[in-house]
Amino acid sequence: MDLNRLCVHTITTKPWPIETAIERFSAHGVVGMTVWRDALTGRDISATGQRIRDAGMAVVSLCRGGFFPAETATGRQAAIDDNRRAIDEAAALGAPLLVLVCGAAPGQPLDISRGQIQAGIEAVLPQAQAVGVKLGVEPLHPMYADSRSAINTMAQANDICARIDSPFVGVVVDVYHLWWDPYLQVEIDRCGQMGKLFAFHICDWRTPTEDLLNDRGQMGEGCIHIREIRGWVEDAGFDGYNEVEIFSNRYWALEQEQFLERIVAAYKTHA
Amino acid sequence: MDLNRLCVHTITTKPWPIETAIERFSAHGVVGMTVWRDALTGRDISATGQRIRDAGMAVVSLCRGGFFPAETATGRQAAIDDNRRAIDEAAALGAPLLVLVCGAAPGQPLDISRGQIQAGIEAVLPQAQAVGVKLGVEPLHPMYADSRSAINTMAQANDICARIDSPFVGVVVDVYHLWWDPYLQVEIDRCGQMGKLFAFHICDWRTPTEDLLNDRGQMGEGCIHIREIRGWVEDAGFDGYNEVEIFSNRYWALEQEQFLERIVAAYKTHA
Repeated sequence: MDLNRLCVHTITTKPWPIETAIERFSAHGVVGMTVWRDALTGRDISATGQRIRDAGMAVVSLCRGGFFPAETATGRQAAIDDNRRAIDEAAALGAPLLVLVCGAAPGQPLDISRGQIQAGIEAVLPQAQAVGVKLGVEPLHPMYADSRSAINTMAQANDICARIDSPFVGVVVDVYHLWWDPYLQVEIDRCGQMGKLFAFHICDWRTPTEDLLNDRGQMGEGCIHIREIRGWVEDAGFDGYNEVEIFSNRYWALEQEQFLERIVAAYKTHA
Repeated sequence: MDLNRLCVHTITTKPWPIETAIERFSAHGVVGMTVWRDALTGRDISATGQRIRDAGMAVVSLCRGGFFPAETATGRQAAIDDNRRAIDEAAALGAPLLVLVCGAAPGQPLDISRGQIQAGIEAVLPQAQAVGVKLGVEPLHPMYADSRSAINTMAQANDICARIDSPFVGVVVDVYHLWWDPYLQVEIDRCGQMGKLFAFHICDWRTPTEDLLNDRGQMGEGCIHIREIRGWVEDAGFDGYNEVEIFSNRYWALEQEQFLERIVAAYKTHA
């Protein structure tokens, strides 16, 4: 596996400021970068995008918008406003895609949250179209259905995209969230047929997983058959980046240069 | 909500020896008890079953068999042998049902594990029939698909039961594992139509959940609409016990008498 589709998320090496990440990713042969909004704090966003491109990398996406559901109309409007800002930031950065972690309001029925997610996406869609930024619905693992996303399977992500029916709204496939689903392959295929495979995220699922959020594994150290799922995505027509997105207290505690070397090695062997 | 269908699992009050649990559950008006195998260590099993009945409670089920998948034939045979022992223990206890946490072998493809689960159940089924103990397939939350169960939705549990097609094999519905699934109601209905709703477990999902295994919530302190799901189960024909099964480091650290009082109060209000 060569590196010509390797993208790394800024959050993967969270301890590094983005300027360091740009330099070190590039030095290791990474060709794409997905930027998390927190990495842009206090930066000139368009200059940062240019800096990434000047280092020979593509800006793959901006993470993340979403979190549309809320129990009050004020809360939902605040989310819409924030997503409009995120769309503008993506455009300034030169990112063609804004990743959406769709959200859930704890205790609110999930079907209500799903309706609010669709309404929120539809509310911000004109602006996304106007500035040429696509929106990627990322289905999240069911263990995040309480507070992070009411969209928990590839089928649900396909369904909401089909209902919205815009070329600017598609799906972000993350193996961590979806690997367990017996309908994954058929739904990836359906997504490809709709032309909505917008991004592909990789990492691994450790056994035991000790933290619900920040114990993701390096490719190859868990139970996910990453290469098989990548095959499904590619068979369905995806030819974009393989994005390494690892949240890990244990890896963030390492010297990040060493961690990045391990990412590149694991990518070559297991992705 | 009166208590005439309230069952509590021994593991819910894990710090108590089963003799204390029998006495205190009964004193609080609990009418059913599901026994975990660890609670029987060193006990005369049939005498313990009699002790539960003498205290005015029904033995609802024995937890748990399963864990059928393994990478080696030796491992799979060991699981089958252990399940046969569990069936005998259920019979000795007077439990009409053995709950199955079906298992998964980390890294082994889930469809292979599902085949091994079906083969394992079919291997022990004659003995279950011979002693009159039913087997309950409990679909587990997808966050346990790595190592605890390759059966992760109600649809999959229904499917494996339909394939095995025995009146001795049915489904255990646990709201903690299944609440997030948009197809839950329709699959509960299908299960009822097949006559396979064997048990119903309740607790709640806390936000945030701080431990993948042992941070379950008390009814009413989380996001699960327990009463709605109970309605679906009852509409599908279930008239058995509502079983309180809470694994919780924080609750096990409490004085268990106080915890049991809170369970009974929460049951009346939220279940």
